[in-house]
Amino acid sequence: MRQLKEECGVFGIFNNKDAAALTALGLHALQHRGQEGCGIVTFDNKNFYAERRLGLVGDNFTKGKILEKLPGGYAIGHNRYSTSGNNLIKNVQPFFANLHTGGIAIAHNGNLSNAIHLRKELVKEGSIFQTTSDTETIVQLIAKSKRSKIIDKIIEAIFKIQGGYALTIFTNKKLIGVRDPFGIRPLVIGKINNSYVLASETCAFDIIGAKFVREVDNGEVVVISENGIDSFKPFPKIKERPCIFEYIYFARPDSIIKNVSVYEYRKKLGASLAKESHIESDFIVPVPDSGVPAAIGYSEEVKKNIELGIIRNHYVGRTFIEPTQQIRSLGVKLKHSINKSLIKNKSLILIDDSLVRGTTSVKIIKMLYEFGAKEVHMRIASPPIKHPDYYGVDTPDKKELLASKLDLEGMRKFINATTLRFLSIEGLYKSMGYEKRNSSYPQFTDHCFTGEYPVEPVDANKKSFEKEGLSFLSSKL
Amino acid sequence: MRQLKEECGVFGIFNNKDAAALTALGLHALQHRGQEGCGIVTFDNKNFYAERRLGLVGDNFTKGKILEKLPGGYAIGHNRYSTSGNNLIKNVQPFFANLHTGGIAIAHNGNLSNAIHLRKELVKEGSIFQTTSDTETIVQLIAKSKRSKIIDKIIEAIFKIQGGYALTIFTNKKLIGVRDPFGIRPLVIGKINNSYVLASETCAFDIIGAKFVREVDNGEVVVISENGIDSFKPFPKIKERPCIFEYIYFARPDSIIKNVSVYEYRKKLGASLAKESHIESDFIVPVPDSGVPAAIGYSEEVKKNIELGIIRNHYVGRTFIEPTQQIRSLGVKLKHSINKSLIKNKSLILIDDSLVRGTTSVKIIKMLYEFGAKEVHMRIASPPIKHPDYYGVDTPDKKELLASKLDLEGMRKFINATTLRFLSIEGLYKSMGYEKRNSSYPQFTDHCFTGEYPVEPVDANKKSFEKEGLSFLSSKL
Amino acid sequence: MRQLKEECGVFGIFNNKDAAALTALGLHALQHRGQEGCGIVTFDNKNFYAERRLGLVGDNFTKGKILEKLPGGYAIGHNRYSTSGNNLIKNVQPFFANLHTGGIAIAHNGNLSNAIHLRKELVKEGSIFQTTSDTETIVQLIAKSKRSKIIDKIIEAIFKIQGGYALTIFTNKKLIGVRDPFGIRPLVIGKINNSYVLASETCAFDIIGAKFVREVDNGEVVVISENGIDSFKPFPKIKERPCIFEYIYFARPDSIIKNVSVYEYRKKLGASLAKESHIESDFIVPVPDSGVPAAIGYSEEVKKNIELGIIRNHYVGRTFIEPTQQIRSLGVKLKHSINKSLIKNKSLILIDDSLVRGTTSVKIIKMLYEFGAKEVHMRIASPPIKHPDYYGVDTPDKKELLASKLDLEGMRKFINATTLRFLSIEGLYKSMGYEKRNSSYPQFTDHCFTGEYPVEPVDANKKSFEKEGLSFLSSKL
Amino acid sequence: MRQLKEECGVFGIFNNKDAAALTALGLHALQHRGQEGCGIVTFDNKNFYAERRLGLVGDNFTKGKILEKLPGGYAIGHNRYSTSGNNLIKNVQPFFANLHTGGIAIAHNGNLSNAIHLRKELVKEGSIFQTTSDTETIVQLIAKSKRSKIIDKIIEAIFKIQGGYALTIFTNKKLIGVRDPFGIRPLVIGKINNSYVLASETCAFDIIGAKFVREVDNGEVVVISENGIDSFKPFPKIKERPCIFEYIYFARPDSIIKNVSVYEYRKKLGASLAKESHIESDFIVPVPDSGVPAAIGYSEEVKKNIELGIIRNHYVGRTFIEPTQQIRSLGVKLKHSINKSLIKNKSLILIDDSLVRGTTSVKIIKMLYEFGAKEVHMRIASPPIKHPDYYGVDTPDKKELLASKLDLEGMRKFINATTLRFLSIEGLYKSMGYEKRNSSYPQFTDHCFTGEYPVEPVDANKKSFEKEGLSFLSSKL
Repeated sequence: MRQLKEECGVFGIFNNKDAAALTALGLHALQHRGQEGCGIVTFDNKNFYAERRLGLVGDNFTKGKILEKLPGGYAIGHNRYSTSGNNLIKNVQPFFANLHTGGIAIAHNGNLSNAIHLRKELVKEGSIFQTTSDTETIVQLIAKSKRSKIIDKIIEAIFKIQGGYALTIFTNKKLIGVRDPFGIRPLVIGKINNSYVLASETCAFDIIGAKFVREVDNGEVVVISENGIDSFKPFPKIKERPCIFEYIYFARPDSIIKNVSVYEYRKKLGASLAKESHIESDFIVPVPDSGVPAAIGYSEEVKKNIELGIIRNHYVGRTFIEPTQQIRSLGVKLKHSINKSLIKNKSLILIDDSLVRGTTSVKIIKMLYEFGAKEVHMRIASPPIKHPDYYGVDTPDKKELLASKLDLEGMRKFINATTLRFLSIEGLYKSMGYEKRNSSYPQFTDHCFTGEYPVEPVDANKKSFEKEGLSFLSSKL
Repeated sequence: MRQLKEECGVFGIFNNKDAAALTALGLHALQHRGQEGCGIVTFDNKNFYAERRLGLVGDNFTKGKILEKLPGGYAIGHNRYSTSGNNLIKNVQPFFANLHTGGIAIAHNGNLSNAIHLRKELVKEGSIFQTTSDTETIVQLIAKSKRSKIIDKIIEAIFKIQGGYALTIFTNKKLIGVRDPFGIRPLVIGKINNSYVLASETCAFDIIGAKFVREVDNGEVVVISENGIDSFKPFPKIKERPCIFEYIYFARPDSIIKNVSVYEYRKKLGASLAKESHIESDFIVPVPDSGVPAAIGYSEEVKKNIELGIIRNHYVGRTFIEPTQQIRSLGVKLKHSINKSLIKNKSLILIDDSLVRGTTSVKIIKMLYEFGAKEVHMRIASPPIKHPDYYGVDTPDKKELLASKLDLEGMRKFINATTLRFLSIEGLYKSMGYEKRNSSYPQFTDHCFTGEYPVEPVDANKKSFEKEGLSFLSSKL
Repeated sequence: MRQLKEECGVFGIFNNKDAAALTALGLHALQHRGQEGCGIVTFDNKNFYAERRLGLVGDNFTKGKILEKLPGGYAIGHNRYSTSGNNLIKNVQPFFANLHTGGIAIAHNGNLSNAIHLRKELVKEGSIFQTTSDTETIVQLIAKSKRSKIIDKIIEAIFKIQGGYALTIFTNKKLIGVRDPFGIRPLVIGKINNSYVLASETCAFDIIGAKFVREVDNGEVVVISENGIDSFKPFPKIKERPCIFEYIYFARPDSIIKNVSVYEYRKKLGASLAKESHIESDFIVPVPDSGVPAAIGYSEEVKKNIELGIIRNHYVGRTFIEPTQQIRSLGVKLKHSINKSLIKNKSLILIDDSLVRGTTSVKIIKMLYEFGAKEVHMRIASPPIKHPDYYGVDTPDKKELLASKLDLEGMRKFINATTLRFLSIEGLYKSMGYEKRNSSYPQFTDHCFTGEYPVEPVDANKKSFEKEGLSFLSSKL
Repeated sequence: MRQLKEECGVFGIFNNKDAAALTALGLHALQHRGQEGCGIVTFDNKNFYAERRLGLVGDNFTKGKILEKLPGGYAIGHNRYSTSGNNLIKNVQPFFANLHTGGIAIAHNGNLSNAIHLRKELVKEGSIFQTTSDTETIVQLIAKSKRSKIIDKIIEAIFKIQGGYALTIFTNKKLIGVRDPFGIRPLVIGKINNSYVLASETCAFDIIGAKFVREVDNGEVVVISENGIDSFKPFPKIKERPCIFEYIYFARPDSIIKNVSVYEYRKKLGASLAKESHIESDFIVPVPDSGVPAAIGYSEEVKKNIELGIIRNHYVGRTFIEPTQQIRSLGVKLKHSINKSLIKNKSLILIDDSLVRGTTSVKIIKMLYEFGAKEVHMRIASPPIKHPDYYGVDTPDKKELLASKLDLEGMRKFINATTLRFLSIEGLYKSMGYEKRNSSYPQFTDHCFTGEYPVEPVDANKKSFEKEGLSFLSSKL
């Protein structure tokens, strides 16, 4: 069950006659990274064109009519994840601005940890912000840069920002990709015929038949122009430290990171979990669909059958909002149903990929007991989440994270499982192929489990801003 | 992959203060039976109220506002499956008519095989039809009946109609359920507190916490009133002969038919398939999600691992229509992607529940080879479909059914599989718990496999009507 | 100020390649007869096509896209007047039905005074009504007729109905016009090139450049086919008795009835009013726009200037509904404003064409005094309205008609005018060109002034139906 | 006939509990100044709230629901006139920005003649524009001002801008009104109870019962706060020179300028016209509704009757766009119809308030002849328009102004009138109450007649911008 939310997917393509259609397809493949809104900006060597929509790519960008409004051989696109607020279209990216040097379009995955600080300074100097997005801070910084070349303006801007970010930018007939110094957020380079492509994950290449070229390095700025790819590394060289949640949670199972499929990583997490904490039972039940790969790895490890004890309702529409109290009181049954003749009087191992607030687990376990389960052994294929994120993962407040409030036995009681086990940090790093976690400089950005943040979260105590800020999003200015 | 389409799900509830909300939930649980439109009619002891919408229940009937428009303790509801045509709201059920005896609302799952014939006669006598639905024929027959009691009017009407049908009717403070003489289409009775409920499948009971009471018998008319349930059996007694596709295809895995879950039936189909035609390979890959239960049964039978070799994209929206030629040429990749690092150089058994036109299999197998599969052994957990249906399953024309045109080797070549096997008719009946098919009076309506139709399809050669008829649906009158 | 409402305008055209576009224009010219909805049905020698919309013709039927959906050389159209209810699209005409003899489309201006009575009988025999419109009663009667020729079916139907009606019907490649025995509702025949045209008023001919041919006689059925016009007069011959409100109220000023423009009739009403009841004052102020022609006639008669003392706001949109209490309390000022520097300390004659409830006059006179008027002498260019109509004019209930409750002095006090005078019945008939009213058989249907109804209003006491009936219109069935 | 277009109406109210509702009413009264869009921004002592809509005030701001979204006792509002472009909502005012000093909302009537010049400079310095509106230039200038007090920031900004402008601004709990140095665009101060009100015309006071206090002087900045009104006059003192078109064309007839109603001015223009160029004829026909006040003045002067020879169709909806070629070829008949029995064989004087392109006159005169008019003597109650405007009147290009291309006889031939006369410049000034035009410093901004512009139109030759600029408005960025 998805309880953490990724902030966005990005895509860009250089010099291809089907730029907009291929971008729509790439965004469709990245849809799991954000479902609230999507947008595409194209350039036809003369004008920029933009279409932004609330909702899914497949509902908005698949008709010939809209693609005709997006002519040109250059495009960048963006998927936005879901937040509250009713008038959000203006926060849908890519953003566009007419600079002195010409038009610039920008799409951003990640989160700046000092955006509020920078924004206040910019406003003081007369910049007018139109959105509450931290991405606009980047655009305003570029606009204010006194450097003459656009690439220098961008580098001046990224020297000021902090946090996790992967950017695709189109300006001055250049497609530019940027990844933050730690490489927290992902960005990969592909090629289709002679056209270079940028995307958050490789699954966006497969859908259009593009070939994977390489990952953008941490702290790298790649500039794709008619002369090919130029690479700039303006930051001091440090080792990469990518967000561990891409592996265990966000990326699509068929995406490939460092030559291994995400599906394989997750099966290994399940296998390690089995090694650490298997218990006898009648069969294994995955929480659909998030727990399935780990359950398969677990099942193979212990030679115990998987059964579909929980059926997911595929028709829980995106607009299944504002239910009545009657419906609300029925809770998770809208999304899941129990295969009751299977479950009855059985002891089962319930597997999910993570545990955030615990609310979904509470409901599912309650349903399993209602339909006759005898024992429910909950197994989580990642460590307890105790700390919030500030670099692009939409975690709840610390006080809503179950593992930050309760110890293991407390959590077990809360979700009412017969037993509860998490994967250990050691198991996590081993599953990823490391002997152990490098405690002086961890191989991954893993602060949600460990509390060790790679970058000081400057804005973290400025929570008051969020309320202020959100006022932009609605009609309340 | 869904290529056959069920015609509709029905629901009814008697005397419950949350009638409309519970009906919405029941329809949500039956959503897999029809996604085009949905409607609810309620009665508050004085007036009838109706709301009908295109699209999903969860997108239309979950807001308090709409439920407020549906007051009263009595309700029936309907899910409609998807057809073409742009102005279909008037074909969304339940239908309502003001008869001399008072209002009547009716919801219908199934298809009449002599509706056109009857309609022509009614029009000749001055009946004005407002829709092209065969359901309206039933309403017009009831309206024209000279019998004085409403139950007699209904019985007079069902004596004239032929085909497969399960009806929920509300009129004169009675909730009436009707099932055709063969019991081709399903209808079950449940109870929540003191309120009787009717539904196409038991999964609609689980979502609201209703208890299963019994199935409506084939040829039975049940009349639920304040005095409880009355049962009428106006037809000569024959054995039931339910549609086999409910077991292998339509019903939700967690629905229960004759005390066994549909999931179990499908696992048994997979196990039988394994017994009949297993072949050595590296692992088993189900076509998601239709092939999963059979793949689990197959896997358990042969002790071979399942792998998620094909990933389904959950964001292929309902409105993913009218793609451009570019997008169209990319075909099934919109819906599925291949877990390529897993598949590469592997020999695999690909399992699906049925094969209709073969077009989806062609695309999936092509993708598997593109991403490096060495061998693809296709296994289908049901027999070849050679004959169209006329009783509520929306099969393509005979000439589009792959198995009616090609022999096994022809089909194998067409889909380009290394090997191809179907479950045998014998295996099918055995999986259902019978020793063998009773050839003189088969236990199931199975003409799609065998060509043995339970009822003469009277209208079958009147295909010209469809074009005429469809003119009603659009603005072309 | 419009307080009475006409029920609808009709149009029909035979064999013209621009049938739908010309019908749209004709309906636009007849827009004053109904603004709620409009519809056009066409026939292309093979199929019927229908488009019906809520709102104005000009907002709905002027785009090429919609006209492309209405191919064919034959068309009828309808304007519907505004009522309450939220789901009215199904009551928008023309109505269409597929009869045994083929499709029939019908558009109706008027009101049947025995529709409820007939409807009940039809329902008893099994007819299913889809609307609450009396027009559907006509369609159902035609459908049930056992006569073999369509013209005989229509004549059989109109022998059963009573009231005021003007119909345009298209069926079997014939355009048929019908006017009730008294000719209460208007219908005229025109010709454009070789195509005959039917319309409620001649202004619909002017807009498309058609020439006026003649009026349809009272009680006449005209059948336009490829052989030209046939005329049937199935009823006993009686003198016509058209509705007087067409002259003084409904028809557009530039329409011509009996060779005289409606504008001229209204100027004469104003002149007669001046002769009967002129009083000294500073100038004449018409209530815009309804009182202008009478004011011009009055002004010419007494050689006194007209001034625009009241300015009408042209932007009071059709959707100016559901105002807040604050706005509601400001009342008529939304629609009118006072030319205050003109009015101040002046004595003025305020002229309107009729007085129904008196509410608008109350508001206008109050505003005039607020802005400084010294004396307001109200003059109404028609007699007091004391009786409701049942033949197509949407009058309020008798108890809301000011003149049915109060005598002249009572009305004067109610509206707070300095003096108040109405045109006399004698003045009315003289203005129309008659020496006097023929009391044994009045030249006009004038029961609203006199109480003498031409036809017994059978349904008048069945008001309960209306509530019942209206339930059809909304989602409350 | 409206062929020139005003750019907008503005409104503001300080400290009134019904601020939003009263602003909606004020904008409704000012609707003639702009029908494309409308917006209201309110402040509730804590937050700003904004609602902007395409279309009429009466269609958008009269429902309780929307007013509930606009809480607070302070409001400004704006009506926008109609232009082309499909995605214009972002150009609908009032504009809002979050400055360092707090939120600021601004509504602007007029046009800056150096906006492009200023905009280019601002962009060069890093300002990002979101719209193509010259109003945003004002906002950006205020944002960039280094002055510390908001009033000083505003004064610094208006020192840079040139052209005609009337602004209502709300910021820092102050309602600020600004009028350009010449007072080209109008702005008046009213009071309702204890709340000050600003509006473009006095008619906005009448609708809400506010009393007129005084006009804002040319070049004056009024600051309304809890301490009452403060006045600043930052510019060198010059005589006012208001736009003459407000008197003869834009302002509502019941608005009062310098103690005289606009209706009176227009009657005097008609009377002067009669004195200058009367000719014998049967009667006077005004072009509705623009020519009516002048026709009344003319009629009184020459004692000749007015007749409604041309009937205006009130149902030409706002969305009467995109007609088919058939309908387009029928031209002006959609808007007007001829009272043909009146016109036939008559000689008539046709009066309108102005002549711009001449296209409407061509159509009307053609129709009059078609319906039998013998002679049509066209009389225009203002001088020939030979020069375009740059200060807020949307005139066509010079080459489309009929009087800039043809002499009097040429124009007469073009519109095919029997005779044609315009009011002289002398007659114009006399009608306004002046002995004669002060040629060294004209009493009015009258360059459209005379070519004497009060301010150099800096941007006039930068027409290329408009195309560039408009790219913002559509999806083409």
